[in-house]
Amino acid sequence: MNLEVQDGRAAHLARRYSAVRAHSLALSAGWSAEDQQVQSMPDASPTKWHLAHTSWFFETLVLRPHAADYAVFDPEFAFLFNSYYEALGPRHPRPQRGLLTRPPLARVLAYRQHVDTAISDLLQAGEPDAACASMIELGVQHEQQHQELMLTDLMHAFWSQPTRPSLLDRASPIASRTERPPAADAWAEHPGGQWEIGHDGAGFCFDNERPRHRVWIEPFAIARDLVRNRDLQGFIDAGGYREPRWWLSDGWARVQTEGWVAPAYWLDEHEHAGMEFTEFGVQRRDPDRPVSQISFYEAEAFAAWAGARLPTEAEWELAASRGLLNDALDQRWQWTRSSYEPYPGYRPAAGAVGEYNGKFMVGQRVLRGGSIATPPGHARATYRNFFPPEARWQFSGLRLARDL
Amino acid sequence: MNLEVQDGRAAHLARRYSAVRAHSLALSAGWSAEDQQVQSMPDASPTKWHLAHTSWFFETLVLRPHAADYAVFDPEFAFLFNSYYEALGPRHPRPQRGLLTRPPLARVLAYRQHVDTAISDLLQAGEPDAACASMIELGVQHEQQHQELMLTDLMHAFWSQPTRPSLLDRASPIASRTERPPAADAWAEHPGGQWEIGHDGAGFCFDNERPRHRVWIEPFAIARDLVRNRDLQGFIDAGGYREPRWWLSDGWARVQTEGWVAPAYWLDEHEHAGMEFTEFGVQRRDPDRPVSQISFYEAEAFAAWAGARLPTEAEWELAASRGLLNDALDQRWQWTRSSYEPYPGYRPAAGAVGEYNGKFMVGQRVLRGGSIATPPGHARATYRNFFPPEARWQFSGLRLARDL
Amino acid sequence: MNLEVQDGRAAHLARRYSAVRAHSLALSAGWSAEDQQVQSMPDASPTKWHLAHTSWFFETLVLRPHAADYAVFDPEFAFLFNSYYEALGPRHPRPQRGLLTRPPLARVLAYRQHVDTAISDLLQAGEPDAACASMIELGVQHEQQHQELMLTDLMHAFWSQPTRPSLLDRASPIASRTERPPAADAWAEHPGGQWEIGHDGAGFCFDNERPRHRVWIEPFAIARDLVRNRDLQGFIDAGGYREPRWWLSDGWARVQTEGWVAPAYWLDEHEHAGMEFTEFGVQRRDPDRPVSQISFYEAEAFAAWAGARLPTEAEWELAASRGLLNDALDQRWQWTRSSYEPYPGYRPAAGAVGEYNGKFMVGQRVLRGGSIATPPGHARATYRNFFPPEARWQFSGLRLARDL
Amino acid sequence: MNLEVQDGRAAHLARRYSAVRAHSLALSAGWSAEDQQVQSMPDASPTKWHLAHTSWFFETLVLRPHAADYAVFDPEFAFLFNSYYEALGPRHPRPQRGLLTRPPLARVLAYRQHVDTAISDLLQAGEPDAACASMIELGVQHEQQHQELMLTDLMHAFWSQPTRPSLLDRASPIASRTERPPAADAWAEHPGGQWEIGHDGAGFCFDNERPRHRVWIEPFAIARDLVRNRDLQGFIDAGGYREPRWWLSDGWARVQTEGWVAPAYWLDEHEHAGMEFTEFGVQRRDPDRPVSQISFYEAEAFAAWAGARLPTEAEWELAASRGLLNDALDQRWQWTRSSYEPYPGYRPAAGAVGEYNGKFMVGQRVLRGGSIATPPGHARATYRNFFPPEARWQFSGLRLARDL
Repeated sequence: MNLEVQDGRAAHLARRYSAVRAHSLALSAGWSAEDQQVQSMPDASPTKWHLAHTSWFFETLVLRPHAADYAVFDPEFAFLFNSYYEALGPRHPRPQRGLLTRPPLARVLAYRQHVDTAISDLLQAGEPDAACASMIELGVQHEQQHQELMLTDLMHAFWSQPTRPSLLDRASPIASRTERPPAADAWAEHPGGQWEIGHDGAGFCFDNERPRHRVWIEPFAIARDLVRNRDLQGFIDAGGYREPRWWLSDGWARVQTEGWVAPAYWLDEHEHAGMEFTEFGVQRRDPDRPVSQISFYEAEAFAAWAGARLPTEAEWELAASRGLLNDALDQRWQWTRSSYEPYPGYRPAAGAVGEYNGKFMVGQRVLRGGSIATPPGHARATYRNFFPPEARWQFSGLRLARDL
Repeated sequence: MNLEVQDGRAAHLARRYSAVRAHSLALSAGWSAEDQQVQSMPDASPTKWHLAHTSWFFETLVLRPHAADYAVFDPEFAFLFNSYYEALGPRHPRPQRGLLTRPPLARVLAYRQHVDTAISDLLQAGEPDAACASMIELGVQHEQQHQELMLTDLMHAFWSQPTRPSLLDRASPIASRTERPPAADAWAEHPGGQWEIGHDGAGFCFDNERPRHRVWIEPFAIARDLVRNRDLQGFIDAGGYREPRWWLSDGWARVQTEGWVAPAYWLDEHEHAGMEFTEFGVQRRDPDRPVSQISFYEAEAFAAWAGARLPTEAEWELAASRGLLNDALDQRWQWTRSSYEPYPGYRPAAGAVGEYNGKFMVGQRVLRGGSIATPPGHARATYRNFFPPEARWQFSGLRLARDL
Repeated sequence: MNLEVQDGRAAHLARRYSAVRAHSLALSAGWSAEDQQVQSMPDASPTKWHLAHTSWFFETLVLRPHAADYAVFDPEFAFLFNSYYEALGPRHPRPQRGLLTRPPLARVLAYRQHVDTAISDLLQAGEPDAACASMIELGVQHEQQHQELMLTDLMHAFWSQPTRPSLLDRASPIASRTERPPAADAWAEHPGGQWEIGHDGAGFCFDNERPRHRVWIEPFAIARDLVRNRDLQGFIDAGGYREPRWWLSDGWARVQTEGWVAPAYWLDEHEHAGMEFTEFGVQRRDPDRPVSQISFYEAEAFAAWAGARLPTEAEWELAASRGLLNDALDQRWQWTRSSYEPYPGYRPAAGAVGEYNGKFMVGQRVLRGGSIATPPGHARATYRNFFPPEARWQFSGLRLARDL
Repeated sequence: MNLEVQDGRAAHLARRYSAVRAHSLALSAGWSAEDQQVQSMPDASPTKWHLAHTSWFFETLVLRPHAADYAVFDPEFAFLFNSYYEALGPRHPRPQRGLLTRPPLARVLAYRQHVDTAISDLLQAGEPDAACASMIELGVQHEQQHQELMLTDLMHAFWSQPTRPSLLDRASPIASRTERPPAADAWAEHPGGQWEIGHDGAGFCFDNERPRHRVWIEPFAIARDLVRNRDLQGFIDAGGYREPRWWLSDGWARVQTEGWVAPAYWLDEHEHAGMEFTEFGVQRRDPDRPVSQISFYEAEAFAAWAGARLPTEAEWELAASRGLLNDALDQRWQWTRSSYEPYPGYRPAAGAVGEYNGKFMVGQRVLRGGSIATPPGHARATYRNFFPPEARWQFSGLRLARDL
């Protein structure tokens, strides 16, 4: 990560920490303890677990090494709320997070309070050294990532219930994020050539965004707009989900074994024609809304059918940096054609946080941008999100590209 | 079932109904909404689901057909809380009961109240006819069965958590059920011959206990006492879990694929020597306590190692009817050598309740007796419990028998 | 087993041994080395493996203990061709038998010759003692059992190939086994009462047929004829495979997960209407032929739909002993309502052959009778065949029974 | 593909076709019909199937469209021997190829002869047009790919048998491929910069090698030699298979679930210390031999432990083009750090052959070079082989790289 922070930032960090931590509670305030308990699939975690895990992150990587008199809240939490850090000892199996009725939510909230007080004390005690400050910043960014997962994971749990309740109400700030109208000139062109991508060093970034490095790019065009429901409906109407030639081999196998006929949260056409499950519950499908909750395989197949392709992540970053893209960071994550690989010269951070990104660099596809569930200010043009190609429970869509 | 009830029983039924329904709430009162939400395996159900399903049973089989003005509480509950009645329409898949954060517990409790009021109104409106009264009685018996499952299912969920909380506190009435000391004369003998088994018609019974019918029995001996932890420890010490010759072939396959080395709730000997998970949490193993949470396969293997065998269900019933058995009905269900089959001349009840027992008569083994989790008064000598031979989460143990 | 043999039987045993061993080779003579190599599912074994395993049985249980100078053919075969005898050491995993391209078929045939010569030498050297003679007899019976499995297992492998070749030609002796025409009086009645079942001691039997013991039977009727294709077609036409009320719960689950719509070897009605895969390849379905290749679940569901039930094994044996049944032993094995359990007083044989039957006495259903694939003279009225309730690749059918 | 061929090449094509087709038969001549029948896992195919499928390829893509009077050998073969071409109709499921005892090997050999005659007739009838000639060339290249798979697939089947027979004898030409001695200067350096990779148009190539395109490369060093058994032994001795920090997350999960402790064909150290299964059967492990039969995950972990990394495919190609590498093409395929992706501007070929490569471009890693099993002359510096990261049954090893 770019974890350098300037001296004299204690007060700034304290404000930032408080705001982000409060946002997690604000997000989850409308969900019952039962809602926050449930895990609907191995890849999704309960809200309660997210609230505890993000606190464990601060406790383990900030307070234990940097706060001299810190009293660990509960020694057992190291086992319960470690996500995947092998260097930090054994941990509760991921698929069983939903079994943890204990600790109860109330105790997890007390844990959060305990950690918040300790961080506050730490920052009031004087300027943190660089190592400490950078870990606090990382923890804050980490918590923001989990804020998005809290939404997508619980939305999957709500989707999995027959009643399909609404995740948010219309008063939510997320509701105000409206996509732009279609651009007059659908395609933006880029001349290609030798460029640099990756984070350039100012401000926070994750380690996977570095080092900034040279790439050679052929001329390309990229769609200014995201693909919308009306476009995807055209693919369906043309038999796209029944026609193997549009699909990668692994994707076609998924279509058949899992019976895909539409994006994950479109309701069955026979029983609920024209309906879609959204963050506001089941709604009539809006043809202007960007497609969401699709897999990489579906994005690839749609692009092939449309006579186009997905952009590479380098193309996307160059286009976003020039401002060529609408709805780049706040509507839907956009699948790219790129496998999630280390940049040339990549080095994971030392210590446990070296496991943050690097060990996942196989079998995943890069998504770029950000979504309606991404906390404002969290995403940027160099940000690299990643999921397996079959993942369908994120706010994931696509935009098209083509060679020039 | 034996569903005949006498005229003039409205007041009696009302009292009985109230007492049993109240007991369900008393049992679950100490568990949080999160505890009542969780499902730790497909065969176990959440407490909240049990509380709702038993109410659905009364609503569907008593109130809808017999209460003229009954207003259904929520039409969606017919889908959510039908357990397995094909005749009563489609239903939520069993392995996904733990996903139902909605309805919340509070609403399930309101549902119970709504049903209770309607049943009370029905019984105050006059004497119920025989069909109605018998369905109320069946519903009460059904609720008692689920009271035991509430305990065993949540105990499994607590076992599945690293913290392994206590299901009950010592003030629970269950805590006072103490097994008898060992009998002076360990074996009771029975001369065999021609006898009758099955329910004889007085009082409630399930349809699977009927008809009473003749059987021929060879002379046999049966242990007065249940097998205890010290006995099972002897089997372990003799290498019983590593020696295929004691095991049925399917049992030995389970031992190997699931790594069985002791009863289900005995803790790992390397990390927690001599400890057992009980209804009061993790406790030092009491050698005098009856063995619990074992499968039929383990019961069979133990009996073979001990130079004995399991009793058949007919032997068990004859011995229990004569009073030859200690701790017959209130300590541990006792695996028998009998497959769960229809009695000669068996006829399932007409209508949906015909699915109550009969359709499970393949692949299951009969357990006789009752357990510490069985509501007092619910079990009897003719009662036929049944589970698959690999089931290990019930209060299931054994007593030995042998030929004479 | 009833393994007693009289003195002076060496010559008789030698003739019998030779005839049965030759029959195995005659059966398989028309199949190529490739045909004899293949294993189409874990429960079925390659022909080559059957030919080797039956030889291993004689080598291990007769020649090693009883032939002083016997030279083991290949020490590795003890590992490769032990089927399931834990007492006889580790063995090749059952699902991987089809991987054994080595030893080649030619070497297995040499192994058979080697064993045959040694058995011949043993029997020419003098009268075998009782232990030896009884093991030879058991080996012969065992080989006959595998002769049937050679047919049913390879028939499954042929069914699993798109070309669906014919197992036998019309000149096969099996082809001449024609079922009897329908009986004029369809139902035979039996008064019930106290009877004995089980083998009475004269001639060979397996240990699971003993001891002969008393049973109490209620009066019953049993169908003289087997259920035929036309009957089963009636069940299908009435929607039987789509109607849960006829099915045991486990059976209905199979219908749904495996898509059962007809007996296992009936071809798809859309592509091949009216066709059935038989031992002579794909043929037009003969409505008069007894139903074959059905599971216990289907037999139960058909009987329920027909307003009848399956007979218990005791009923079947009593009826067969009185000669009340047509096509009892040479057309189709007949599923009974009985779980495969030890008879009262059952004791497995000592030593490795104690594993022959006893350890399978859970989770299986009894079939009585015999089939077109059963070697003539092998079956008898007390014979107890057994398979899991879902098994569908045997020549298994049913006859009906009902209470009187 | 680069499928352009010059006029007047009929005679050349005929010679080349004959030589390659004959080589397939020469390879398999030592294996019995049983050996050629077996399929040891879904990813591997029987030899017989390979022999038939390669003939089907010529029949379908050359003879049907280009030979006017060609008589199809057997219409059913289109279903049986299509590998994965959706455009060419339905096909036999891949995991069931080992069930096809019919057609027998003899008939597959007759099929080969039939196709060979027809191709010969076609080429003698006059100069083939460009489309036809290019399909013949593709078929020849395709057959060479299957020659390698015949070896690796049957080697897996032999490994899966307890007797572990030898795939080849010492007289095989493959036996004479000896790796070079270690280079004096272990690391070759490359200055990086802007280069081109991909096939430049002269001679045959597959479509995935094109288009040739510019890349920017940072300076790097690459090992002249392949990693050898002695090196891998050092990793094992250092606990490499037990230490999560060297592994990608997915790789570590495989280590645990599949119990990896050494390369796939190293024998168990407790029972067979120091032994390895090779193409010549079980042999004492030669520390100088290049590591073989390892997954991408193991290659990555070894490189991390060695303080190095895998080369990207662009680095590998640039180094191989300059001649910096020993044993580049004829010892072991070399895992690269690169995901298998389309080159910029990639277009699959039109028609069914468009499925040859492109639809697999997700979830696979690129291997470069060639192996002892690759037919001489088949590989080249631009050749892109690919397998999933967990694949362990190929002659796959690695060479190291590092940043400069």
